[in-house]
Amino acid sequence: MNRTELIAQIKQKQSFLCIGLDADIKKIPPHLLELEDPVFEFNKQIIEATKDLCVAYKPNIAFYEGMGPKGWVSLQKTIEYIPNNIFTIADAKRGDIGNTSNMYARTFFENMCFNSVTVAPYMGEDSVTPFLEFEDKWVIVLLLTSNKGGLDFQTIESKDGKKLFQKVLETSRSWGTDENMMYVVGATRVEEFSEVRVVIPNHFLLVPGVGAQGGNLKDVAKYGMNEDCGLLVNSSRGIIYAGIGTDFAEKAKVEAQKIQQEMAVILSEAGI
Amino acid sequence: MNRTELIAQIKQKQSFLCIGLDADIKKIPPHLLELEDPVFEFNKQIIEATKDLCVAYKPNIAFYEGMGPKGWVSLQKTIEYIPNNIFTIADAKRGDIGNTSNMYARTFFENMCFNSVTVAPYMGEDSVTPFLEFEDKWVIVLLLTSNKGGLDFQTIESKDGKKLFQKVLETSRSWGTDENMMYVVGATRVEEFSEVRVVIPNHFLLVPGVGAQGGNLKDVAKYGMNEDCGLLVNSSRGIIYAGIGTDFAEKAKVEAQKIQQEMAVILSEAGI
Repeated sequence: MNRTELIAQIKQKQSFLCIGLDADIKKIPPHLLELEDPVFEFNKQIIEATKDLCVAYKPNIAFYEGMGPKGWVSLQKTIEYIPNNIFTIADAKRGDIGNTSNMYARTFFENMCFNSVTVAPYMGEDSVTPFLEFEDKWVIVLLLTSNKGGLDFQTIESKDGKKLFQKVLETSRSWGTDENMMYVVGATRVEEFSEVRVVIPNHFLLVPGVGAQGGNLKDVAKYGMNEDCGLLVNSSRGIIYAGIGTDFAEKAKVEAQKIQQEMAVILSEAGI
Repeated sequence: MNRTELIAQIKQKQSFLCIGLDADIKKIPPHLLELEDPVFEFNKQIIEATKDLCVAYKPNIAFYEGMGPKGWVSLQKTIEYIPNNIFTIADAKRGDIGNTSNMYARTFFENMCFNSVTVAPYMGEDSVTPFLEFEDKWVIVLLLTSNKGGLDFQTIESKDGKKLFQKVLETSRSWGTDENMMYVVGATRVEEFSEVRVVIPNHFLLVPGVGAQGGNLKDVAKYGMNEDCGLLVNSSRGIIYAGIGTDFAEKAKVEAQKIQQEMAVILSEAGI
């Protein structure tokens, strides 16, 4: 999916919601456990209930990898089930030396047809650029993460007064374009959104941390939005585990709707 | 495996060689492709031929993940085949927020019984410490990587004159001990080994980049070794792809032997 198509989806659905498909076998509704592939069944019903309310789905790969080979089968079936006009993110946080990053890229882009992969920047250019060699595929670079440990290194000030995340931003933005790169900026890091937007006014930002982690949607929009929206705001647990009965998908839909409606107001006020 | 056992293995085998089991279906000997699980068969023969010459095996997870669900089956069989007295490293370069890192840790430590996992430090403490909660299991933190892009961010100098890798080292060493943490320092970064050793004299270092990537074993030992050896030096392609005929395992053994013999001289000179 390219940038124009993604923006069209946002405008059409009046939503920039990304739903985290972090299906944990220990948390999904018990009645699904009797089925052959409970995780896929869970995802399928969540997707059916929410596909008109969100523009992206983001499975965190750890949850599937943790189930062994059958987890990868559930993931593959899930990614194939997601409608083509919804953006897909493999939240894998990979990154390795060149030939190995290329292997990871092929795994997620070719074997599984994800639109994008999240990548850690610590190993630098040749760990990220192999992901940029695929047409209409995206790299989403970790920049400012929403967790407490995000403050350990990402905001260290360098000699020239710039923080590490600013150095990552300034160096990495030349590796690709706003047509194939996005950045992760946690919703809990609102004070830094403006600093990020100074360097990359046009790029999309993937924003986790709204809801369970304490981030606030209005603040994210205020400091992070650009004229194309430029945001994908993720919510996982707050939506997918809204219910654990047989009506879990309906309950997930209600939660997704609440966020979508809030987003519609924000987009409308911004004239998008 | 604990530190004492690892050191005992090094002394007994007069080797600190780690062999990278980066089995690429496109590179393994063609005659294996007819078998049901060519990758496992390849690894099995490599392990049989080299297990007396090395103290660690390190599969890079990208190669297995790239094969889909059956890759994970090959990996599982491989890890179960490795003798218990050889240290195993899941070269996965993972790292995510707390509950997700815990999921990755369980994948590699419980589902697959690896002794250690490589982890990227960009997301800070709560992305690394979930891996430290397992008895006799190790985290190997990326510090100075051997690739060109390793210079993009890892050596950025901060306000107090310390480079990023030094900040990572100083902050992260308190998360664990030299009994459950190691660090990755590329063989191509010889000039920084001494700086690393000033901060962590006792920790083991995992050193990739000898051979194909241009690092030199003697220099690594000169600047990186401590009184317990404190090094695991990895070689992958130079050993496992030494031959592509039916005698590939024998050829791999010859290459491993060359390195082991060089290591025996180094260890002997150091009185280890």
